[in-house]
Amino acid sequence: MRLPILIINFKAYAEAAGRRALEIAKAAERAARELGVNIAVAPNHLELALVAQSVDIPVYAQGADVETPGAHTAHVAVDNVKEAGAAGLILNHSEAPLALSQLSRLAARAKAVGLDLVICAPDPDTSLAAAALKPHAVAVEPPELIGTGRAVSRYKPEAVVQTVEKVSRHFPDVAVITGAGIESGEDVAAALKLGTRGVLLASAAVKAKDHYQKILELAKPLAD
Amino acid sequence: MRLPILIINFKAYAEAAGRRALEIAKAAERAARELGVNIAVAPNHLELALVAQSVDIPVYAQGADVETPGAHTAHVAVDNVKEAGAAGLILNHSEAPLALSQLSRLAARAKAVGLDLVICAPDPDTSLAAAALKPHAVAVEPPELIGTGRAVSRYKPEAVVQTVEKVSRHFPDVAVITGAGIESGEDVAAALKLGTRGVLLASAAVKAKDHYQKILELAKPLAD
Amino acid sequence: MRLPILIINFKAYAEAAGRRALEIAKAAERAARELGVNIAVAPNHLELALVAQSVDIPVYAQGADVETPGAHTAHVAVDNVKEAGAAGLILNHSEAPLALSQLSRLAARAKAVGLDLVICAPDPDTSLAAAALKPHAVAVEPPELIGTGRAVSRYKPEAVVQTVEKVSRHFPDVAVITGAGIESGEDVAAALKLGTRGVLLASAAVKAKDHYQKILELAKPLAD
Amino acid sequence: MRLPILIINFKAYAEAAGRRALEIAKAAERAARELGVNIAVAPNHLELALVAQSVDIPVYAQGADVETPGAHTAHVAVDNVKEAGAAGLILNHSEAPLALSQLSRLAARAKAVGLDLVICAPDPDTSLAAAALKPHAVAVEPPELIGTGRAVSRYKPEAVVQTVEKVSRHFPDVAVITGAGIESGEDVAAALKLGTRGVLLASAAVKAKDHYQKILELAKPLAD
Repeated sequence: MRLPILIINFKAYAEAAGRRALEIAKAAERAARELGVNIAVAPNHLELALVAQSVDIPVYAQGADVETPGAHTAHVAVDNVKEAGAAGLILNHSEAPLALSQLSRLAARAKAVGLDLVICAPDPDTSLAAAALKPHAVAVEPPELIGTGRAVSRYKPEAVVQTVEKVSRHFPDVAVITGAGIESGEDVAAALKLGTRGVLLASAAVKAKDHYQKILELAKPLAD
Repeated sequence: MRLPILIINFKAYAEAAGRRALEIAKAAERAARELGVNIAVAPNHLELALVAQSVDIPVYAQGADVETPGAHTAHVAVDNVKEAGAAGLILNHSEAPLALSQLSRLAARAKAVGLDLVICAPDPDTSLAAAALKPHAVAVEPPELIGTGRAVSRYKPEAVVQTVEKVSRHFPDVAVITGAGIESGEDVAAALKLGTRGVLLASAAVKAKDHYQKILELAKPLAD
Repeated sequence: MRLPILIINFKAYAEAAGRRALEIAKAAERAARELGVNIAVAPNHLELALVAQSVDIPVYAQGADVETPGAHTAHVAVDNVKEAGAAGLILNHSEAPLALSQLSRLAARAKAVGLDLVICAPDPDTSLAAAALKPHAVAVEPPELIGTGRAVSRYKPEAVVQTVEKVSRHFPDVAVITGAGIESGEDVAAALKLGTRGVLLASAAVKAKDHYQKILELAKPLAD
Repeated sequence: MRLPILIINFKAYAEAAGRRALEIAKAAERAARELGVNIAVAPNHLELALVAQSVDIPVYAQGADVETPGAHTAHVAVDNVKEAGAAGLILNHSEAPLALSQLSRLAARAKAVGLDLVICAPDPDTSLAAAALKPHAVAVEPPELIGTGRAVSRYKPEAVVQTVEKVSRHFPDVAVITGAGIESGEDVAAALKLGTRGVLLASAAVKAKDHYQKILELAKPLAD
């Protein structure tokens, strides 16, 4: 996983459904090329293979349900995320919480098949537990700020700082990124100043009128 | 929903992952055209949009998690299934069981947005409960036969007959289809003779060496 | 199941935790004796055996997780509900939704071991599906009214009437009861007038200052 | 939490249902007194309050679902576990896996209300993540050995040793106990020799013909 990183989570937003997923992914690709920074897009499951075959930037899956392929109707297997063309996997987003033991198994499998692995957690203590599973990055996201436009890097900087401190003390190989409420390039810059190596965001990019311009703004601090 | 129907569920099989989903979908499309029958394919979430934009036969989603688009990381919304190009939706497969009240909500939404709706159930009593939600079809599938090669139409015909009897008595507008262990055209023919209007199957088609020939065999009884 | 019935759900309320569960159960017992009506109490799992050995009115479990005893840590088995001294079982409360197929299995087991069985559902269509599983009663409870003090029998009478109509047409042996927002004897009387055979309520009784007097008021309409 | 400890999990075993829960708890109490060691019993939810008011040894709940009391039908609240008379709480048993973020919240609440807290995990890596949440003890239990009679301390000693090593390096205040397949006093002694501070077991005690004698045998190594 190349750091610093900006990850754009499409969630299940209408604005990123169907063909619109391709448009946002291509805007992100253009911004990444323009700035020379690492931007990953995380389309909804429904558009994952479609997006992955259409852009050259890293595509991350928003989650996975089982480790390996098989008779798992309506489930996403880690191996199939890779097969569909993804380069990474986000696990345990606050909107898709995973049982600890299942998270542990999925994380091990993701690393085994060579996917970039980001595990989300809501606070410093839980982030430390997530870091113990040795992902490439832990994303600390206070759920009460997600989607509010009140950026974690401004409204809850102590959660970010404590996570960086705890994780780097115990598991220095695990990067810390953050998210929740990130709306502007300034919010991203503030997050990096707190010691994180990147940002995970969603609505700011997905719901922008001009995807390219907004992603450019959001990713700019990574180039500085 | 055009009846009779053959629905091919790709599950999370490795044999239907990534680009291979397209090959199987195209084989099904060719067989449907050749026989003039209705064959639907249900790719994994990861390939849904990709397959839906590539074939002209109905594409069904294997499931859905929430009714409407929004901030639902790693969840599939009914509306987005439609937006991704699907024509139908399978709910409550035994490998993806749904809470009754959630099933009720998702079913209502699927009908509201114009998706063909199939609800799966493991036995006659549960099928009657599923039929009360007024899907286009109920698929009765004894879980103990799924994936065994022992066809429900031969090894548990009474479950099929009782489902047809119960559902048609109370909810005559709901079609009954069946599945589990279906391996051959003969199994499909037997299922239709029991009063069903179609078959839901997976491994027989997905794991076949020659997808086109196998699907042709399986779908042939629908043309008779 | 003796009808009409008043069922008092203790939920996980602090006011009904520990020894306080016994006090409320004994108040209900006294009111039932005084009025000669059927009042059942549904204590939290933690106090079920304790309450069941202490009162003579029917004790119902608030739910169950598995059918039969065994290696199921932190799970409640239907058979053990009976063994603990309960006379009935509530399944699929909106706060404890069950997968349709699991609900079907638990319902069958509850009837097999001789427990009174109440299945909850949020609306008329889902209630019809619940009734198809042949419980002794379906409890229709619009979740948006639960705990509000706005009684379903006054604020959503059409949901109750439609449930009674649908269920009695298809499954006349299944009684319909109702709940949500029931606060007073008048609310209970109104529910009975809509064609129900009883009421399921919680906070009105559990949070009352004088449990005996409040339960007496709530149960009075059953005696009329 | 007094160490070393023997915890007897009653699961949902028929042999520990209803009044039989009291008999086993009293046998454990007698053995604890006889040996002067710490034995905790973890009855099923249904008998928790009943057992807690009947014995003087620590009673642990097998799990919890929500942090605080309220409108949570069929759910167990941490605070109510305490109110029912329990002294401790087991979380995340492999038969009752918890989402990481929920586990984190429940663990914090259990410590806040003064319950002894044991978090289970299936392997060394997951145990380290569990230990990051700072319970009094982590119980490492390879699920494939649970209930087999093949003791973890003999058949998978490396899992125990690695857990002790990892946890004590990062979180030295967290005790490690173990379980799975423990059948005899020798198995318990072997577990202690591997560096653990206690054992969590179930069927060996619950299904014994003579509960007192068997628990005496199992707890004896704690006195040595």
